[in-house]
Amino acid sequence: MVLWTDLAVDKRRRQLDAIPRAWLISPPSGILDVTAVPESCGLLSDEEITITRSSVDILLSKLARGVWSSVQVTTAFYKRAVVAHQLVNCLTEIFVERALAHAAKLDEHLKRTGQVVGPLHGLPISLKDQLCIEGLETTMGYVSWIGKYADKNAVLVDVLIECGAVPFVRTNVPQTLMWPETFNNVFGRTLNPYRTSHTSGGSSGCEGALLALRGSPLGVGSDVGGSVRIPAAFCGLFALRPSYGRIPYCGAVNSLEGQDSILSVFGPMTASISGLKAFVRAVVHAKPWLKDPLAIRKKWDEEEYMLVEHGNGNGLCFAIMWDDGVVVPHPPVTRALRKVKDVLEKAGHKVIDWTPFKHNELGNLTRDIWNAASAEDYKVTTASTGEPVIPTMELDVTGPATIAPFRPARPGISAYQLWQAQKTKRDIRKEYLDRWDRTSSVTDTGRPVDAIIGPAAPYAAVPHGKNRYTNYTTVWNALDYVSSIFPVTAVNPALDSKKGPHIFISDFDREIYEQYDPEVFKGLPVCLQLTGRTLEEEAVIAMTEIVDMALAKHAKNDAKL
Amino acid sequence: MVLWTDLAVDKRRRQLDAIPRAWLISPPSGILDVTAVPESCGLLSDEEITITRSSVDILLSKLARGVWSSVQVTTAFYKRAVVAHQLVNCLTEIFVERALAHAAKLDEHLKRTGQVVGPLHGLPISLKDQLCIEGLETTMGYVSWIGKYADKNAVLVDVLIECGAVPFVRTNVPQTLMWPETFNNVFGRTLNPYRTSHTSGGSSGCEGALLALRGSPLGVGSDVGGSVRIPAAFCGLFALRPSYGRIPYCGAVNSLEGQDSILSVFGPMTASISGLKAFVRAVVHAKPWLKDPLAIRKKWDEEEYMLVEHGNGNGLCFAIMWDDGVVVPHPPVTRALRKVKDVLEKAGHKVIDWTPFKHNELGNLTRDIWNAASAEDYKVTTASTGEPVIPTMELDVTGPATIAPFRPARPGISAYQLWQAQKTKRDIRKEYLDRWDRTSSVTDTGRPVDAIIGPAAPYAAVPHGKNRYTNYTTVWNALDYVSSIFPVTAVNPALDSKKGPHIFISDFDREIYEQYDPEVFKGLPVCLQLTGRTLEEEAVIAMTEIVDMALAKHAKNDAKL
Repeated sequence: MVLWTDLAVDKRRRQLDAIPRAWLISPPSGILDVTAVPESCGLLSDEEITITRSSVDILLSKLARGVWSSVQVTTAFYKRAVVAHQLVNCLTEIFVERALAHAAKLDEHLKRTGQVVGPLHGLPISLKDQLCIEGLETTMGYVSWIGKYADKNAVLVDVLIECGAVPFVRTNVPQTLMWPETFNNVFGRTLNPYRTSHTSGGSSGCEGALLALRGSPLGVGSDVGGSVRIPAAFCGLFALRPSYGRIPYCGAVNSLEGQDSILSVFGPMTASISGLKAFVRAVVHAKPWLKDPLAIRKKWDEEEYMLVEHGNGNGLCFAIMWDDGVVVPHPPVTRALRKVKDVLEKAGHKVIDWTPFKHNELGNLTRDIWNAASAEDYKVTTASTGEPVIPTMELDVTGPATIAPFRPARPGISAYQLWQAQKTKRDIRKEYLDRWDRTSSVTDTGRPVDAIIGPAAPYAAVPHGKNRYTNYTTVWNALDYVSSIFPVTAVNPALDSKKGPHIFISDFDREIYEQYDPEVFKGLPVCLQLTGRTLEEEAVIAMTEIVDMALAKHAKNDAKL
Repeated sequence: MVLWTDLAVDKRRRQLDAIPRAWLISPPSGILDVTAVPESCGLLSDEEITITRSSVDILLSKLARGVWSSVQVTTAFYKRAVVAHQLVNCLTEIFVERALAHAAKLDEHLKRTGQVVGPLHGLPISLKDQLCIEGLETTMGYVSWIGKYADKNAVLVDVLIECGAVPFVRTNVPQTLMWPETFNNVFGRTLNPYRTSHTSGGSSGCEGALLALRGSPLGVGSDVGGSVRIPAAFCGLFALRPSYGRIPYCGAVNSLEGQDSILSVFGPMTASISGLKAFVRAVVHAKPWLKDPLAIRKKWDEEEYMLVEHGNGNGLCFAIMWDDGVVVPHPPVTRALRKVKDVLEKAGHKVIDWTPFKHNELGNLTRDIWNAASAEDYKVTTASTGEPVIPTMELDVTGPATIAPFRPARPGISAYQLWQAQKTKRDIRKEYLDRWDRTSSVTDTGRPVDAIIGPAAPYAAVPHGKNRYTNYTTVWNALDYVSSIFPVTAVNPALDSKKGPHIFISDFDREIYEQYDPEVFKGLPVCLQLTGRTLEEEAVIAMTEIVDMALAKHAKNDAKL
């Protein structure tokens, strides 16, 4: 039998061979922040730097008008992605020729017909390593899946191609996907470009790292407990976690398959806020329900995007969740919340406090549901090569392993036990919805709270192995609420000094408190999360744009002083 | 400890006490067809007979204009419902005063404001015994639930009241709900009004029997495997099985709770085709997603009802499924299919054949998923009183029990095994959707088949205890396709003679074949099923209307000859 380690070595060798020699750089050593390297390394031309700095709306506009060709744009991002990979180890499948041939066909079509192929014409898009592309391997972090070539595209890949996009790289994931960091036996560990000693989060951690380095204008991650939002938050990006079934999942590989209660979803991650609407609108317009039986037949609703049911977006009432009743966030996160409250009030919106309800119970139920059969799922999947199931994301795996709470510490449960957990979760969803509804008595708008704004995590990106609390994102998966991530600020030791200890809610809360040191987190991005109700993608995107505009206006006003 | 039998006796006594003495009739004996009794028994006035014969659209129109008051309409239907109950044993909760008081309030509102309360203003609606009403017991066929008074309405009850409807009776169900007939330890057995030696189907069998006797203009049943459609088909009605989440389920009681993979849904049952649209449109307009976390945020789509994506309803292409590859239907069902094909072709539509795909596998997977924990579910629920779990619906329960295939014959399975069944089902859903999509190559419309028309069951209503094959309906639950039921004809021995044996697909197919005797089924209604894709409620209702109109025109033309 072939050793699993040999299989992994061979796969990495083949990956290296897929990189054009001319694109290899000498990564700098001794620096933790590598975000400047893509532009300083000398590989990208000035125009390529301009292209890769452009927002999604600018890119789409210039691509549609033929100002930039898709080959040009795809080449620029490909080069930058390969640089990013050399800095933070973020790619899995690299297929330069194929992507450029695809881009060339789009260019030819535009030249010949004067028409774009679709709303994402010519735009390179990076994909998490679950989204099968015909003819390419999908390893999804499992040595056991090396050599598993897809015989067809995932539905979302087909849809994106139909929209004119150019899938151009696939990005790394943690083994099993069920980690909020990114490390596996095939490709190893991904680093946070703002501080390589820290994690970029997970499970879509490589999308986070790649997008932060502008190695892609728009990426697709998946999220069953925070896997789109945590890396977006750790890497200073925008992102959206849509509701179950809004974006097609069919034909993608996954772990815990058959778990029908808390569904994983695909969502966009990007440095451009315009990427959120562009992605969701394009995908929904393509009627994914005709190709994916689980995709919801719900058209893009421009009225919902115009916030007709939210007072047309004027005088909104946001609720801030300062903490979730389990873990108090670090000072930079609390400062970000204060800042958002301030700019929203200045923009004429109302801001009240949100009282979290049964967040701990929801987190526990979610883990009960995942772990109902996760141990067996991992065992079956890894059996063919005998690769070990990774027990910790700590750097020193020989040291005392800190088992993250969602590592299955027990064998599976019965179907009856699973049903009871699912029933309890459903009941809490009803209680939560009713609580939300009842806020109409305190908003003064005649409506319930329009959206909840809270932390995405209790901290900025933590050192490798230390991301042990994901419930700020996971509760919204359990409730199936639409959530976005948006950047607010960066950790600044001058503003974010360590506070004296608060009254700890729990030992865990104390542990997270003790973890904070302004110098260790210095410069890392701080993002927040905005949450609307189930299937409110259009409204959540619109409200995120409103918050972002308020922040931008505030930044401008600050600059004027 | 109180004997469960005593509890049941007491509950039935209280039920009898709830019936106004003046409404008691002397049910005729010695006749099997009791459908004429409500109008011949002398309890209803001529106007009440006119009211209870009226279709839903006429009722709503006259109620809205104040031509008939809600008290008048509700009284008429209540009397007729109580007569029906004495004939076929179909009611559970009877609350005359409360319903009439509600109706009086609506009348007062209309008189005072000139406005209706909502689109269902004043219409009495019967509800399956799962739909909790504040202050009333919800036994759902379990002795163990006698005395379980609801402290609030189910969401759908609230929504219907908001729409102006008058919930006025609740209707009986089989113990556990998981039977296609209706019999339980509390209220006993429900009979088919067209032939009382036959079943009215299940699990919404009492809605079927009540509506066939025009004891209600519109009823709500639930359907996890055919429980709305089987009784509708056995009782000659229209019905709709919507997709998961289109109609709110929250706050209703159920069995197998926490089973999140094949969801039970509520749907309308009615003798008036206009009832389908009136119900779905009204409920969806009320935005049930604001009250039920599992209700899908999808507005009523008039464009979909106008069949814009189906060539505006002109020159549709239907596919007929003559059999499902498991059981060949009895002659009256096949004749009904031929008749529908004929009238649709005369109306300018195309009709092709449908090849069923993995229907047997889908049925088996569905039972695997239900039975993953059904035995334990029933055991836990019945434990408090020790009432026995009913092993058969045969009349002679001392004889050899024929265990229906969905009775759990085995203990539960593990969560991992459940996930595997759910995964396989999901994969077949994709295969089925793709097959549907590929029919665009043979329809000549440029579209895939617009709808599938097939049997609702392989037979008209069978004698009690003999309804042993439900897969003609269950497959669409597994696929989550929207399905309607519509009446076509009645069993006519002169037209439906027994055929010589065909080549049997299986022993079971032979058994069903042998069951047929034209004289035994004489006069029973024959309905068919029309199936569209997931969340196509609007289009399925519209296409059912098209088929019904074609049948009506044909009947008129026949009459002219």
